[in-house]
Amino acid sequence: MTAANGTNGYHHEPRKLKFAVLGLGRMGLRHASNVAYLTPRAELVAAADAYAPSVEKAEAVLPRSTRLFTSYDDVLNDAEVEAVLIATETASHASLTIKAIKAGKHVLLEKPISIDVEAARPVLKAAQARPDVKVMVGFVRRFDESYQYAYDQVTTGKIGKTYLIKSASNDTYDPTGFFVQYSKASGGIFVDAGIHDIDIARWMLDVDNPKSLPNVKKQVTSVYASGNIVRHPALAESGDVDSALAIINFENGTTCNFHVSRTSMHGHDIYCEIYGTEAKLHVNPLPSLNKVKILDGYGVRNETTPSFLERFKEAFANEVNIFTDTILDGKAVPVSVEDAFQASQIAVALTHSFRTQRPVFFDDEGQPILE
Amino acid sequence: MTAANGTNGYHHEPRKLKFAVLGLGRMGLRHASNVAYLTPRAELVAAADAYAPSVEKAEAVLPRSTRLFTSYDDVLNDAEVEAVLIATETASHASLTIKAIKAGKHVLLEKPISIDVEAARPVLKAAQARPDVKVMVGFVRRFDESYQYAYDQVTTGKIGKTYLIKSASNDTYDPTGFFVQYSKASGGIFVDAGIHDIDIARWMLDVDNPKSLPNVKKQVTSVYASGNIVRHPALAESGDVDSALAIINFENGTTCNFHVSRTSMHGHDIYCEIYGTEAKLHVNPLPSLNKVKILDGYGVRNETTPSFLERFKEAFANEVNIFTDTILDGKAVPVSVEDAFQASQIAVALTHSFRTQRPVFFDDEGQPILE
Amino acid sequence: MTAANGTNGYHHEPRKLKFAVLGLGRMGLRHASNVAYLTPRAELVAAADAYAPSVEKAEAVLPRSTRLFTSYDDVLNDAEVEAVLIATETASHASLTIKAIKAGKHVLLEKPISIDVEAARPVLKAAQARPDVKVMVGFVRRFDESYQYAYDQVTTGKIGKTYLIKSASNDTYDPTGFFVQYSKASGGIFVDAGIHDIDIARWMLDVDNPKSLPNVKKQVTSVYASGNIVRHPALAESGDVDSALAIINFENGTTCNFHVSRTSMHGHDIYCEIYGTEAKLHVNPLPSLNKVKILDGYGVRNETTPSFLERFKEAFANEVNIFTDTILDGKAVPVSVEDAFQASQIAVALTHSFRTQRPVFFDDEGQPILE
Amino acid sequence: MTAANGTNGYHHEPRKLKFAVLGLGRMGLRHASNVAYLTPRAELVAAADAYAPSVEKAEAVLPRSTRLFTSYDDVLNDAEVEAVLIATETASHASLTIKAIKAGKHVLLEKPISIDVEAARPVLKAAQARPDVKVMVGFVRRFDESYQYAYDQVTTGKIGKTYLIKSASNDTYDPTGFFVQYSKASGGIFVDAGIHDIDIARWMLDVDNPKSLPNVKKQVTSVYASGNIVRHPALAESGDVDSALAIINFENGTTCNFHVSRTSMHGHDIYCEIYGTEAKLHVNPLPSLNKVKILDGYGVRNETTPSFLERFKEAFANEVNIFTDTILDGKAVPVSVEDAFQASQIAVALTHSFRTQRPVFFDDEGQPILE
Repeated sequence: MTAANGTNGYHHEPRKLKFAVLGLGRMGLRHASNVAYLTPRAELVAAADAYAPSVEKAEAVLPRSTRLFTSYDDVLNDAEVEAVLIATETASHASLTIKAIKAGKHVLLEKPISIDVEAARPVLKAAQARPDVKVMVGFVRRFDESYQYAYDQVTTGKIGKTYLIKSASNDTYDPTGFFVQYSKASGGIFVDAGIHDIDIARWMLDVDNPKSLPNVKKQVTSVYASGNIVRHPALAESGDVDSALAIINFENGTTCNFHVSRTSMHGHDIYCEIYGTEAKLHVNPLPSLNKVKILDGYGVRNETTPSFLERFKEAFANEVNIFTDTILDGKAVPVSVEDAFQASQIAVALTHSFRTQRPVFFDDEGQPILE
Repeated sequence: MTAANGTNGYHHEPRKLKFAVLGLGRMGLRHASNVAYLTPRAELVAAADAYAPSVEKAEAVLPRSTRLFTSYDDVLNDAEVEAVLIATETASHASLTIKAIKAGKHVLLEKPISIDVEAARPVLKAAQARPDVKVMVGFVRRFDESYQYAYDQVTTGKIGKTYLIKSASNDTYDPTGFFVQYSKASGGIFVDAGIHDIDIARWMLDVDNPKSLPNVKKQVTSVYASGNIVRHPALAESGDVDSALAIINFENGTTCNFHVSRTSMHGHDIYCEIYGTEAKLHVNPLPSLNKVKILDGYGVRNETTPSFLERFKEAFANEVNIFTDTILDGKAVPVSVEDAFQASQIAVALTHSFRTQRPVFFDDEGQPILE
Repeated sequence: MTAANGTNGYHHEPRKLKFAVLGLGRMGLRHASNVAYLTPRAELVAAADAYAPSVEKAEAVLPRSTRLFTSYDDVLNDAEVEAVLIATETASHASLTIKAIKAGKHVLLEKPISIDVEAARPVLKAAQARPDVKVMVGFVRRFDESYQYAYDQVTTGKIGKTYLIKSASNDTYDPTGFFVQYSKASGGIFVDAGIHDIDIARWMLDVDNPKSLPNVKKQVTSVYASGNIVRHPALAESGDVDSALAIINFENGTTCNFHVSRTSMHGHDIYCEIYGTEAKLHVNPLPSLNKVKILDGYGVRNETTPSFLERFKEAFANEVNIFTDTILDGKAVPVSVEDAFQASQIAVALTHSFRTQRPVFFDDEGQPILE
Repeated sequence: MTAANGTNGYHHEPRKLKFAVLGLGRMGLRHASNVAYLTPRAELVAAADAYAPSVEKAEAVLPRSTRLFTSYDDVLNDAEVEAVLIATETASHASLTIKAIKAGKHVLLEKPISIDVEAARPVLKAAQARPDVKVMVGFVRRFDESYQYAYDQVTTGKIGKTYLIKSASNDTYDPTGFFVQYSKASGGIFVDAGIHDIDIARWMLDVDNPKSLPNVKKQVTSVYASGNIVRHPALAESGDVDSALAIINFENGTTCNFHVSRTSMHGHDIYCEIYGTEAKLHVNPLPSLNKVKILDGYGVRNETTPSFLERFKEAFANEVNIFTDTILDGKAVPVSVEDAFQASQIAVALTHSFRTQRPVFFDDEGQPILE
C-alpha cells in the first residue's frame, strides 16, 4: 500500500505553535484542554500549576505529550515553549507576564492584568519594550461569535455611527457566600466584573481610534458610579457591592452605561445593546441555554445559562485559536495590554466614583483625577 | 528540568481510536477535520476519495500524519484502521459499509443507507452477522445539543408521555436549480430530507421500545403523504416535489406529522414540536444564526442559518466524538442500522402514498403493503 | 353659554345600527357587552335568552336602554331591530338564522351553522334568497389584528403566492371532563374546533377565487385525517378524539395541514404558519398573555393565554364593529354563509376520513364522496 | 311584546360620570373618543378647544350629544360637568387644573403638570386644599396591561424585594425636525420624556411608602445625568439633548437607571427591567406591532410600534375607565398630583445634573440642592 502523501512530502504539515499553560485551576485546565484538543494549529507542550493536586488532576485530562510542572519558572525557561497562557490567580498575573515577555514568550493573559492600576503599569512597559513579543489579554466576550458578528456590523457601517453602549453583566447568585470572600482580593465589582463591559464598550465605540483623535491621550471625559448591597451584607466590610451601575462619558462623544451584579436568580445573564445612528443591535437580550422552549404549567420558557462556562464555551476555544493565528500569521493582537490597562484605569475610576458619590474626571494626559 | 510526568509514566495517554474517513467531498472533508482536530479520543490515520482533486484539497487541511488514498479498498484493508466514517456518494454507501463490516471496521455511516429499501437490507444483515462491529448511522440531529436536551426531558419523564411529534425540514431555496438534478438520484424528498424527521420521531416517540411492544414486529400502522411542486417545475419529470407533508400513525398510539421543503426563502429552518401529556417542547421555533437582534427599518430581526452547516456545526463534531466514545467505552450505538432501515421503509412508504394519493398500511411483519 | 354645536344641527350624529343579541350565555353576554359598550356605531336595543337566569345576570351588566326578553321570537318580530347576533346553543343556530333572515334582519351568526352539513344547507338557501339581508358568520380569528395584518401581507403580494397553511388549535386541557360531555353534541373535534383552521386556510389560500377558478365548483381535491385519544378515554364512546391532524389538498394547488387538540397543558395556543413563495408568516408562534417576561428559577418565561377569551378579546369587539360597518356602509360581509358551509363540508369530510382511515375525495360538483 | 325589564325598573342603569375633555388636538380627540365610546361608565357631555378648527374636526367624530365649545371656561363653569380631562398644551395645564379644582371638578390631567417645578407647586396646594376633588395625572404606562401585570407581581411579593429599575424610552426619530422646535417649550428631555420612567420607578420601587419611611420627607438621595446630541445639532441652542442617561439613588436603598432618546430608527421602544431579590421582570424587551413574525430575506422579524399611539392604545382607554371607576366608586386615585410633583422635581434635578456634570443631592426636606 502506498499512501497518496506518505513519503513524497508534498503534504505540508502546518507548523504548530508550541504552547504552554500556566495555572491549572478550573479555567486554566479548560484553557489547557482547549489548546490541546480544540486548537488545530497549536500543540500543548507544557502546563504547570504551583499546586500539585491541580497538576495531578490535569494529568488525567491532558495529552501524554504535554509535560507537566509545578514550577512556572521551569516553563518560562523552557526554550521549546513559544507562547504561554497565564491563568494563575490574579495576584501573580503581572509578575508572570513580565517574566514571560522578558523570556521572549508570546503571552495570552487572563484578565485582569492586576487589581490595581499601578501594578499593571510595569506590564504595559514590558510589553512596549518588546514589540516582537505578542501580548493579548483574554477578554473572552470579544471572541464570542455573537459579539464578533455585532462588531462586524459596527465596523462595516451597518448601524451608522455607534454612539451608546448599554450592557449588563448579571452573575448568578451564589448562596454559598463564596463571592464575599472572593471580593476581598478581586479589586471590587467594577474591576472584577465591570472590566468586561468596559472593554466591550471601548471596542465597539472605537474610543482610541488614532484617526479620529490623533494627538489626544485623553479617552475618557468622566465616569460616574452607583452601587448597592442587595444580598451579601458582609460585603460592607470590604467596601464592595453586589449590584452597581456605571456611566462612562468618552472623549469622542460616545457613552457607556452598564450594570454589574452578583444577584441574578435566573442564571448568568450578559447582554449588550449597541446604539448606532441607523440601527440598534442587541446581543443576547434574554439568556437561553439552548434552542428548546418548554411549554408547561410555568408558561412558555427556556432554561438559562447557569454560568459563564456555558455561555462562553465556544468563545474560550476561539480565543486560543485566534491568539495562535495571530502569532503564526504575524498579525496584530485584537486586544492588547494597552486596552486592558485603559479598561483597568476606568474600572478604578468608577470604584472611586462609587465611594465618593461624585464623578471622576480625566485629565489631558488620560489620567483619572482621583480627588 | 524535570517534567512532572515526563519519564515516570504515571500520566497515561488515553488510547486513541484509529479512524479513517472515506469520501472527502464537502461533508466528508468536514467530517475528516472534525475527527482530526475536534475529537480528542480519535486519531485520523487515513482518508480517501476516489476523486484525486478532492484528496489534494484535503491535503491542505488535514494533519500530515493522516495518510491519504484514492482507493477506498486500501483503507478498508489497512490493519491499523479501527473505524471508518463513510461519507461517499449515497450509491456506494451500502457496498462500502458491507465491506467495512466484513473487514471488522466499526462504521459511522452518513445517512441514508441507500435510496431504496432493498439495497439496505443486505447492510442490515451484514451488521447483524457481526455484533462485534459497531455500525452507527449519522442522523446528525440526534447529536445536536438542543435535540439531546429535549430527548433528556422526554426520557426523564419531564413532559409526561410523548404522543405527537410535529416537525419541519425547510431547506433554503437554491436558485441554481441544483436540487432538480440532485433529486433524480436522491430517492425523492421523503427519502432524502424526510428521513431526518422520521428518525427524530421514532426516537422521541419510542416506537420500537421492546418493553412496550415485546413481541411485535409492526411499528407503523399507516402513513399518508401529500406534496406539491412550488418552485421547481422540472421536478415533475422525476415525480418528485419540493414541498411535502406526511402523517405517520405508529402502532404504539403515537403520531408524527412533518413537512419537508426545498423552498424556504429565509434560510435553513428545522424545527420540532414534541407533545407530551404534561408539557410540550419546541426545538428551535424560529431560526437564528446567533444571539444578535438587529433593530432597524426592517423591524426587530435576526439573521437565520443559511444551511445545515451553520445549524448543525457542533452536532457534526459531537457525532464523531460520541461514536468514538461508543467504541472506546464499549457502549451500544445510539442510532443503529436497524433504526435507519426502519426509517427508510417509512420514507419509501410515504413516497408510495404520495404517488397513489392513498395511505399505505403496514402488515404484521412490519412491512408496508405497497399496492 | 352657547354650545358650539348645540342647537344649530351641523353636528350630525352618525346613524346607529339597532342591534339585538340572542343568547346570553358566557359568550353571548360578552357579545352583548361589546355591542353595547365597544361598538360606537351600534346600539344594543334588545337581548334575549330562553333561560331566565341568564337574562337576570345580563341585566346587571347591560345598559338600561336595552330591552331584555326570554323569547327569541319576540326579538325577531320586533320591527325596531335591524340586526341580530345569534349566540345561542349550536342546535338552534340554523332555525333562528332562517327566521331572522325571513324577518329581514341582518345576522351575525356564531360559528358553526350546525353540526352537520344537511342542517346548514337550508340556511345557505335562505341567505341566497334574500340578497338584501347580510349574513356573516363569526369566525373570530379573521377579526384579530394579527390575522388581519397577515392577510393584508398576503393580499398585497408581500409573500408572493401563498401555497401552504400549517396551523394549530390547541385548547387548554380541562380536568373537569366538561369536554367529554360537550363533545357528544358538538359534531366532533374537526367540526367544533377544526372549523376555525379550515376557515383561515380557505381565506388565506384564496380557494374560492372566481378569477382563478371561474367555472369550477370543486374547491377541494381530497382530505385526510388522523386522530388519537390522549387524555379523555371516555371520548371513545362518541367516536371523538382529543388530538387530531388533518391535511386538505385544495383544487387550486394549495394545501392546509392543521392540528387540533384539547390537551394543551400550557394554555390556549393557536398559531398559523403561512407559506408564500417569497416569505413565510407565522402568526403567534409562541403564546403570551402580555408583554412581560419573568426571569426566575424556572428560566426565562412568560405566562400564556388561558383561553380564547384572553387571546381574542379585541377580535370579538372588532367583529361586531366590522359587521356594523358592513351594514351601515353597504359593504359585502367578509365571511359569508357560503364560506361557513364550505368549511363545514370539509370538516365533515375530515371526520369521515378519520373514521375510515382513508382520504375523502371531492367530486366535480364540490361534494365529498363519502364512501 | 313585553320587555323583561321594560317597565318594572329592576334593571338599574349604572350612573354615568358626566365627563368633559379640554383640548382636542391629536391626543385630546383620542381621549374624547375614548371617553365617548370606550368608557361604559362615563358620558362625554362636553369638549372644548380654543382652536376652532380642532373643534370642527372633533364634531365629525364625537357623539351629537356632546356639546362642543371654544372656551375652556364655559366647560369649567358648566354645572353638569363632573370631571374634566385636561389635554391642552402644557403651558396651560397648571392654571386650568387649578380652575377646575376650584370649580369642584374631578381632574384627569395629561402629564406633565408644568415644565418647571415652581409652576406645579400651586397645583399641588390647590389639590391638597380640596380633598373632595380627585386629581389624577395621566401617566399612561401605569394603565398598560403589561405594566399592571408587572406591578401586581411586585406588590404580591412574586419577585421578592424590588431594588432596581432599568428602563428606556426610545422615541422614533422624526426627520422633520419637529422635535427641535418642540424641545424649546418642553422643559427638556428629562422633563418631557424621562418623567414617565421616573414615575414608573417611583411606583415599582415604592419610594414614598409611608410604612417603610414614616417620618421622612426625603425620597431621593441623589441623581446623576449625562446626555448627548446624536441627530439634532440644533438642540444645542436650547441646551437640550436627544439621548440621555440618568441614575436616581432613592433614600430607601433602591435605584433607577434610565435612558431616553429621540433617535430610534426602528420605532417606539419603551422597555422596563424590574429587578427583585427573587426574580427579574422585563416589560417589552423587544418591541412588536402584533403577533406576526415575518420570515424572509431580511431574516426572522416583526414590525415595531411606530409611536406611543400604537403601543399604548388600550392603556389610554384603560386610563379614563379607571379614573371613572375611581370617582364613581369613591376610591383613591392611583397616581396623584403629589406623585407627579415628585417626579417633576427629580426630572428638574436630572436636568441640572446634566448641565453641571455633577450629581444633585437632596436635602432632608426632600428638596434638590441645585448648586
